[in-house]
Amino acid sequence: MPDSRTRGVTIATIATEAGVSVPTVSRVLNGRSDVAPHTRERIEQLLRDHGYRRRGQRPNTTARLIDLVFNDLDSPWAVEIIRGVEDAAHAEGVGTVVTAIHRRASDTRSWLDNLAARASDGAILVTSDVDPALHAELQRLHVPAVVVDPAGVPALDVPTIGATNWAGGLSATEHLIGLGHRRIGVVAGTPTLLCSRARLDGHRAAAEAAGLTVDPELVVVGDFSHEAGFRAGTQLLDRPEPPTAIVAANDQMAYGVYEAVRRRGLRVPEDVSVVGFDDLPGARWASPPLTTVQQPLSEMGALAARTVLRLVRGEHLETPRLELATRLVVRESTAPPRAG
Amino acid sequence: MPDSRTRGVTIATIATEAGVSVPTVSRVLNGRSDVAPHTRERIEQLLRDHGYRRRGQRPNTTARLIDLVFNDLDSPWAVEIIRGVEDAAHAEGVGTVVTAIHRRASDTRSWLDNLAARASDGAILVTSDVDPALHAELQRLHVPAVVVDPAGVPALDVPTIGATNWAGGLSATEHLIGLGHRRIGVVAGTPTLLCSRARLDGHRAAAEAAGLTVDPELVVVGDFSHEAGFRAGTQLLDRPEPPTAIVAANDQMAYGVYEAVRRRGLRVPEDVSVVGFDDLPGARWASPPLTTVQQPLSEMGALAARTVLRLVRGEHLETPRLELATRLVVRESTAPPRAG
Repeated sequence: MPDSRTRGVTIATIATEAGVSVPTVSRVLNGRSDVAPHTRERIEQLLRDHGYRRRGQRPNTTARLIDLVFNDLDSPWAVEIIRGVEDAAHAEGVGTVVTAIHRRASDTRSWLDNLAARASDGAILVTSDVDPALHAELQRLHVPAVVVDPAGVPALDVPTIGATNWAGGLSATEHLIGLGHRRIGVVAGTPTLLCSRARLDGHRAAAEAAGLTVDPELVVVGDFSHEAGFRAGTQLLDRPEPPTAIVAANDQMAYGVYEAVRRRGLRVPEDVSVVGFDDLPGARWASPPLTTVQQPLSEMGALAARTVLRLVRGEHLETPRLELATRLVVRESTAPPRAG
Repeated sequence: MPDSRTRGVTIATIATEAGVSVPTVSRVLNGRSDVAPHTRERIEQLLRDHGYRRRGQRPNTTARLIDLVFNDLDSPWAVEIIRGVEDAAHAEGVGTVVTAIHRRASDTRSWLDNLAARASDGAILVTSDVDPALHAELQRLHVPAVVVDPAGVPALDVPTIGATNWAGGLSATEHLIGLGHRRIGVVAGTPTLLCSRARLDGHRAAAEAAGLTVDPELVVVGDFSHEAGFRAGTQLLDRPEPPTAIVAANDQMAYGVYEAVRRRGLRVPEDVSVVGFDDLPGARWASPPLTTVQQPLSEMGALAARTVLRLVRGEHLETPRLELATRLVVRESTAPPRAG
């Protein structure tokens, strides 16, 4: 059987011969399970016949490196993901190359040049919007990719690791209702990100399950920054009937709410309870220590590393999208509302 | 001229032929400037004659990777250093492999195995205590090393990047004295780390320059953890004559002091002023925003990357130790003491 390298076989050739679309072949190459068994079998046979799999997976010439790519390294959760990926890759004798591409084509290009020069077994992209050109280039280089996406669900055909945002939003509001709060303010996240929507919907579900109506006056939209949290907190405290508790869509906006409370001479939690989302290390060191929904970022990183290394070995994934559980961590920023 | 690979020339051979010690040859290989010019010349001639330099520096077969090695990735300043290293390396088309060795021999071993399998141009070690065996192994692999050491001065013969800890300690206390504080408490860092000593000495120098005596009752030792800051802050506030301001040897202990102040129902800065050290991103988001001494961690990382890449190119360093300037950033945790 001639080798694909000499015959120049592409995914498109395989798709034509199998009578399926290019994305279907790509799903099989990516180890996705959402392909009918007999279609998968036909495609895998063709890939074997053309020697495509052997080239794509480099089973005998692993680079012993995987690439972990961020848009920017200034997010406070970057180090959590790095820790998880490094730990899982290190355990398999694989090094982790960390890169920031700053959403710039030139940085993406120089990263891909570097990767091509030294080789890489797989890539983990930490992003909510995978660049289709980047994805195509990784496929061309036969570098399998996994996306860690704390924010949404990417459209592309790439295995994805996320967290249960809706359940997290639900648990934060259930906790406040359990303490006796009835007027609960919300500082929501960037509306275009699915995670923001999921967390807000979880809040609404908890409120409605408890027979409360969500006052639209008490929902203010932020952009996940400290400043947005401060502005939203100030706005909520300015309402004629201010909330007795505020849930924020991330820790950083929760600290902005802290500052809004402090500026009025009020105290957390005596005057206002505050709940965050993420549980980055700073939550333990806040004053008062922050009650927040833990997103298991380092576990998400570790799972992404193990997943991409499974793809390198040619294993199948059971599911294209995995969500790890969030968990409410109760500290000292929440208390029952003042009587009266 | 026979090649060193076939003749098995070692640093010891070169040292014997040059009539110098092994560390002197190693200093020349590491680009250090503290070798007399005529000695350096003789050694470099021998290295050239034996073809040693060519092998050691791999000028034509660069791996296009450098290694960045931490003991642990859970320090809040790790990501700052990663960002600086990645940025400077990326600008030269070089990837950054991030590893945590957890002070464990097995993890160090598996990192070195991985490095040897895929090659690396240079290593940046973020540590105050370089393991001599690790250093020897990197020399054997001809991988030049640079140390980023926010805490002290390592004993080994390796170029080091640090920060001006003494000047930082001085500026923190000068600021408080300028506001009118006379009783200033100190939460010092781990006494075995030189940075702790330098910061405390800077504090003393500022106090004595202002004609104040440093009350030993007002100096409490911590270990850089939030808990230590909380305990020390509580102790200081318990003194019969408590301080009106407290300087902490890092931001995390400063947040511990915040919590001690809050637990007594007091407020920062109205009742007690607080100054930290590091200026990690969380300082801007603390409530109140923290006045602190900025350590330029990402610049230290960038300089380390540029330095190791200079060594790869065989350039000489002007100095074996470089300290970048610290800078006081005044925010809202400091104010004049209450009248009376």
